[in-house]
Amino acid sequence: MKKIAVFTSGGDAPGMNACIRAVVRGAIYHQVEIYGIRYGYNGMIKGDIYHMNSHSVSNILQKGGTILKSARSQDFRTKEGRQKAYEQLQKFGIEGLIAIGGDGTFTGANIFYEEYGVPTVGAPGTIDNDLYGTDYTIGFDTAVNTALQAIDKIRDTADSHDRIFFIEVMGRDSGYLAIQSGIGGGAEIVMVPETRTSSADVINILKQGWNRKKTSSIIVVAEGDEEGDALQIADKVKQALNDKDMRVTILGHIQRGGSPTAADRTLASRLGLGALEGLLNGEKNKMAGIINDKLVYTSFKECITLQKPINPDLLRMVEILSV
Amino acid sequence: MKKIAVFTSGGDAPGMNACIRAVVRGAIYHQVEIYGIRYGYNGMIKGDIYHMNSHSVSNILQKGGTILKSARSQDFRTKEGRQKAYEQLQKFGIEGLIAIGGDGTFTGANIFYEEYGVPTVGAPGTIDNDLYGTDYTIGFDTAVNTALQAIDKIRDTADSHDRIFFIEVMGRDSGYLAIQSGIGGGAEIVMVPETRTSSADVINILKQGWNRKKTSSIIVVAEGDEEGDALQIADKVKQALNDKDMRVTILGHIQRGGSPTAADRTLASRLGLGALEGLLNGEKNKMAGIINDKLVYTSFKECITLQKPINPDLLRMVEILSV
Amino acid sequence: MKKIAVFTSGGDAPGMNACIRAVVRGAIYHQVEIYGIRYGYNGMIKGDIYHMNSHSVSNILQKGGTILKSARSQDFRTKEGRQKAYEQLQKFGIEGLIAIGGDGTFTGANIFYEEYGVPTVGAPGTIDNDLYGTDYTIGFDTAVNTALQAIDKIRDTADSHDRIFFIEVMGRDSGYLAIQSGIGGGAEIVMVPETRTSSADVINILKQGWNRKKTSSIIVVAEGDEEGDALQIADKVKQALNDKDMRVTILGHIQRGGSPTAADRTLASRLGLGALEGLLNGEKNKMAGIINDKLVYTSFKECITLQKPINPDLLRMVEILSV
Amino acid sequence: MKKIAVFTSGGDAPGMNACIRAVVRGAIYHQVEIYGIRYGYNGMIKGDIYHMNSHSVSNILQKGGTILKSARSQDFRTKEGRQKAYEQLQKFGIEGLIAIGGDGTFTGANIFYEEYGVPTVGAPGTIDNDLYGTDYTIGFDTAVNTALQAIDKIRDTADSHDRIFFIEVMGRDSGYLAIQSGIGGGAEIVMVPETRTSSADVINILKQGWNRKKTSSIIVVAEGDEEGDALQIADKVKQALNDKDMRVTILGHIQRGGSPTAADRTLASRLGLGALEGLLNGEKNKMAGIINDKLVYTSFKECITLQKPINPDLLRMVEILSV
Repeated sequence: MKKIAVFTSGGDAPGMNACIRAVVRGAIYHQVEIYGIRYGYNGMIKGDIYHMNSHSVSNILQKGGTILKSARSQDFRTKEGRQKAYEQLQKFGIEGLIAIGGDGTFTGANIFYEEYGVPTVGAPGTIDNDLYGTDYTIGFDTAVNTALQAIDKIRDTADSHDRIFFIEVMGRDSGYLAIQSGIGGGAEIVMVPETRTSSADVINILKQGWNRKKTSSIIVVAEGDEEGDALQIADKVKQALNDKDMRVTILGHIQRGGSPTAADRTLASRLGLGALEGLLNGEKNKMAGIINDKLVYTSFKECITLQKPINPDLLRMVEILSV
Repeated sequence: MKKIAVFTSGGDAPGMNACIRAVVRGAIYHQVEIYGIRYGYNGMIKGDIYHMNSHSVSNILQKGGTILKSARSQDFRTKEGRQKAYEQLQKFGIEGLIAIGGDGTFTGANIFYEEYGVPTVGAPGTIDNDLYGTDYTIGFDTAVNTALQAIDKIRDTADSHDRIFFIEVMGRDSGYLAIQSGIGGGAEIVMVPETRTSSADVINILKQGWNRKKTSSIIVVAEGDEEGDALQIADKVKQALNDKDMRVTILGHIQRGGSPTAADRTLASRLGLGALEGLLNGEKNKMAGIINDKLVYTSFKECITLQKPINPDLLRMVEILSV
Repeated sequence: MKKIAVFTSGGDAPGMNACIRAVVRGAIYHQVEIYGIRYGYNGMIKGDIYHMNSHSVSNILQKGGTILKSARSQDFRTKEGRQKAYEQLQKFGIEGLIAIGGDGTFTGANIFYEEYGVPTVGAPGTIDNDLYGTDYTIGFDTAVNTALQAIDKIRDTADSHDRIFFIEVMGRDSGYLAIQSGIGGGAEIVMVPETRTSSADVINILKQGWNRKKTSSIIVVAEGDEEGDALQIADKVKQALNDKDMRVTILGHIQRGGSPTAADRTLASRLGLGALEGLLNGEKNKMAGIINDKLVYTSFKECITLQKPINPDLLRMVEILSV
Repeated sequence: MKKIAVFTSGGDAPGMNACIRAVVRGAIYHQVEIYGIRYGYNGMIKGDIYHMNSHSVSNILQKGGTILKSARSQDFRTKEGRQKAYEQLQKFGIEGLIAIGGDGTFTGANIFYEEYGVPTVGAPGTIDNDLYGTDYTIGFDTAVNTALQAIDKIRDTADSHDRIFFIEVMGRDSGYLAIQSGIGGGAEIVMVPETRTSSADVINILKQGWNRKKTSSIIVVAEGDEEGDALQIADKVKQALNDKDMRVTILGHIQRGGSPTAADRTLASRLGLGALEGLLNGEKNKMAGIINDKLVYTSFKECITLQKPINPDLLRMVEILSV
C-alpha cells in the first residue's frame, strides 16, 4: 500500500486532531503517501482531498475539533454517492482509508468495502464512549472533565443558595459520561439509560437527604434517560416536592469542544498509529481499540452491534458516596 | 464602632468569599469585633449570626460561592421582618453592617437605615456588572472568562461542522457580560438590551458573512435582549435561512460559580477593605466602588437608580472585528 | 471490625481527599466507626486522631491536597515511635487502618503489622505512578494534565521565538509522568530513567529536526534521569550547539496540587471504597489497586519491591510522532 | 496612507494575536492594505514581509504567542540594519507601521523615525505591565492568572505539609505581576523591586505568623527584587529559622504563554484598533494606551522614560489581609 487517506466523520470529539497527526506522522515514518479528506464522506464524494505532510499537522495536537472538518453524509447512504466516492479515490490512487468516527462512520465503511473492496481501519472518536471494542473512545475523557468542571461551578452556587440542580449531560444511548461526571462531581443521583431510576426514586432520595440535613443536591441526567430529559424530570420533582427553587442546566455543545486532556492525546495518538499500522499490515474493516492497555482490532460489525456495559462498580458507588 | 457584621445577599458571585475575607481580616486589623450573618436578610431576621476570627476566612480566597450563604428574603420586605432583624442586631450589639450584593440588597439596606438608623456600607457583588458607582462588580470578570471558555469550546465544534451557534449568556438588564464575552470569543454578532438588533439584522449579517466565505458563526445573546431569548431568535433565523443545522446553547448557572480570577480577587479584596474602612470612618448608606482605580463611595440611592452605560467603543468593535 | 482509622502519608497527591471521602462514606454505609489521623504516622504517635462523620468530608471531593495533612515521620522508624503509635490506637479502640500513600507508607505499615498485628489496607496515592499493583496511582492523571498545560503554554512562547526548551517534570525513579506529558505535549525528545538517552543523542535529534526545518523544540526530562537534571543536560547541549537561546523550566511543586481530574476522582473513590471493603473483609497488609478495570489486592511486599515497567509502545511513539 | 505593516517584537505576550487580528481587520474595514512582518525588526531587515487578509487572522484570537513570531534584533541597533529595513519597506511601498511590543521595540521605532521618517504607532505588549502611558499592557492579566493558578496549586501542597514556599514570578523591573498574584494567591509576603523588604523582615513576619498559629506560608518574590532571587532569599531565611523544609518554585516561562483571558482579548483588540486608527489619523511615534477606560496616545519618549508606580493601596493590602 503506497497511498492512503484519512478523514473524520460524525460528531467531532476532542483528540481527533491528535489522531490525525499520529496517522500522518506514522505514514511519513513508514514512507507511505498520506492524503486528507475534508468533511468526511461528503468530501470523499466531492473529491475534497489534499496531500498532507509533516507540517500539515504541526501544532494541532492540543486543538479541539478537527482540521479535516466533519459532516454527516446523506449522499453516502445512496449507491450513487458511494460510486462517486470510489471514483474520486481511484483518481487519487488511494488504496486504503483511516476513518476516525463512531457507529455511523463504520457502518458506511463496512458497506463501502463490500461494494468496492476499499479497506478501511477505524479509530473510535466520540465523546459518548459507547463503542464496543475499546475501553475508551477519543474525546470521552475530555468531555467528562468539561462536564465535571461545569458541575463544580454549579455546586458553588447550589451550595450558596441551598438549591437542587438537575444537570443534563450528553449521552443519547449511553450513561458513561453521566456516571463518570456524576461520581467526580459528587452527585447525589445519576440517571442513565442503562438503569431505571424513576422520578419517584429521585423524590425519595432527596427526602432522605433532607433528613440527613443535606441542603443542596446535584442530579446528573444523561440526555437519553428513559424517564425524560432534565427539564421534564425536574418538572415532576418540583411539583411533587413543591420546591420552586430548583434549577436545570443543559450543558450542551461545550462538551464537544476544548483542548484534549493528556489521556485523550495519548489515546488518540496510540489509536491513530495503531489504525495506520493495522492498515499497512493488512487489517481491514476493523476498528483499532485499546483494551486493558493493549492494542486490539475488532471487526466493524461487532463494534456496531455489540453493547459495552457500564461497570456496575460505578453505579453502586453513587449510592454509597452520597450518604 | 466596636461590633459590626457582614453578610452576602442576592445572587452569589465568584469573589464574594475574597470580599468577606477582606472585611474580616480588615476588622481584626482595626481591632473591631466582626460577626457573620448567614443567608442574608433571612439570617438577620432569624439571628443566624456568629462570631468570626482570622481562621474563619482561611483558605476561602480562591473559592466560588459564599461561605455566608445567600438568599433573597421575602420577610425583610415586611415591617415585621425588619423589626425582628433590628432586634437580633441589638441582641448581638452590632452597630454597623457590611452588605455584599446588588440592587435588591442595597434597596433593603436603605429602608432599614431610614427606619432603624443602622448604618450599612455595601460592596457590589454581582456577575452582571450593572451597578452604577463602580467600574466593575465582584464576579463579573470571572463570569466573562467562564462564558468565554465555553464559547471557545463551542467554536471548536462550530468550525468542525461549519455551523451557526446562538449562545445565551446571563444579563437580564445589562449587556456587559454579552459584549465582553462576545468580543473575546470573536462573535460575529452580539445582541444586548442596550441596543436594538432585530432578527432581520442577524439574517443580513449572516448572509454577508457567507458572501465573504465565513463558514461558521457565533452569535452571543444576552438573556434580557428585547428581541427574545436565544431559542426564539434562533427559531426566526432558522426559518428565514432554512438552515436546520443551527444550534443553541444556554450557558446558565455555570456563569455564577468557579474560582474567582485574579482581577476579581483583587477587586473583592479592595472593595471589602474599602467598605469596612468606610463604615469605620463614618460612611453610611453608600456603596464602595472602584472608579478609575480609585476607591469611591456612592449613595445607595444613586447606585440603584442611575444607569451605567456600555462603552460605545466596545459595541463598535464587534462590527469591525468580524469583517 | 467496629472502629477503623484513615490517614495520608508521604508526598500529597490530588485525589487524596476524594479517597478519604470514599473511606469515610463507605464506613458509614457499612456502619463502622471511622476516625481520621492527622499528619500520617506522626499524628498516630501523638494521638492527633478525631472522629469523622459524613459532613467531615463534605465538599472536599474537588480539592487538592489532603484535609488529614501529611508528613514523613522519622519517629515511626524507631521502635519507641511505633510503640507509642500502637498505644494511641489502643486508647481509641481502633482495630484496623486505611493508609493512603506510597512506598514509604506501606513499608511502615508492614513493619507495624509484624510487630503489633494491626491490619492495614493501603490505597496508592502518589503523582509518580511508580507503584506495582495498580495501573494508575491517585494523583497521576492530574499531575500529567498539570504538566501538559504548562508545556502547552511554553510551546506558545517557544514557537514565537523559535526556541528550544528543556522542561523538567517530577519523577525521581519513574518516567511515567515525563513520557505521558511528553507525548501529550508533542515533545521532540523525552528523557526518562528507564531508558538511556545521552546528551549526544539529544544533539543529534535536534540537528535532524533543523534539517527538516523544525524551528522550535520541547525536550521533557524526568528529574531522575541518569544523564543529569534539566539544567545540566541543557548546559551540555547549549555548549555543543553553541545556541545561547535555549531555556530551562523546572515545573516543580505545581505538579503536586490542583483540583483532581475526573479520572483521579473516580479512581480515588474506587480505591478508597475498595481499601475499606477489603479491610472489612479480612484483607491486611495489602494495597488496593485497579488493574484492567478490576479491583485487586496486592501484598505490600510486592508493591514495594516489584517494578512497574513503562509500556514500550509509549516510548516508541515519541520518536515516530516527532518526525 | 494606503499600505501599512504590523509586527511583534521583544518578549511575546498572550493577546498579541488578538492585537494583530484587530489591526488587520481594522485595516480592511478602513480599506487600507495591510502587511505582516515576521520576526520583528529582523524580518524587516530581511524583507520577511507578506500580504495579509481577513482569513490570515481567523481563529487566532484565542491563541497565545504571536503568529508573526518575535525576536530581539541586534542588527536593527546598527545604522546598516536600519538602512536595509528602510529599503525593504520602500520596496513594498509601506508607509506606516504598527509595532506591538515594549520598551526596546519603541526605542527602535523612535530612532527609525528620526532617521527615515517612517511613522509608527505602538501597542503595548508585555506581561510585565511596566509601561507608562497605559493602565494595563497586553498579556499582563493572563500572566497574573497563570501565576495565580500556579500559586493555588502550590498552596494545596503547602497546606498539606505545613510548609513555607517561596515562589518567584517574572518582573525584572516591576512588581506588578508579583503584587497582583500575591494578593490573589493570599501570600503572606510579597517582595517587589519598588519597595525594600529585607530577609530580616521576612523572618519577623514568619515568626509572627507562627505565633498566630499559621502553619503554612507563601512568599511571592519578583525576579528583580533587590534582596536577591527566590533561591537566595530562601537560603537566608532557611538558615536563620533552621527550617530545612522550605521549598522554592520558579514559575518561569509558563507565564509567557497560554490562551489570553477575556480582559486581555478585549484590551488587545481595543489597542490594536486604536493604534491602527491613530496611525491613519496622523499620529506617529506614539503608543496607544487605555487610561481610565479611554483611548490615549503617549509619545514613545515618555513611555520609555517615565515610571508607572504601583498603586500603594495594593502594597498595604498584603499586610492587612495576611493577619
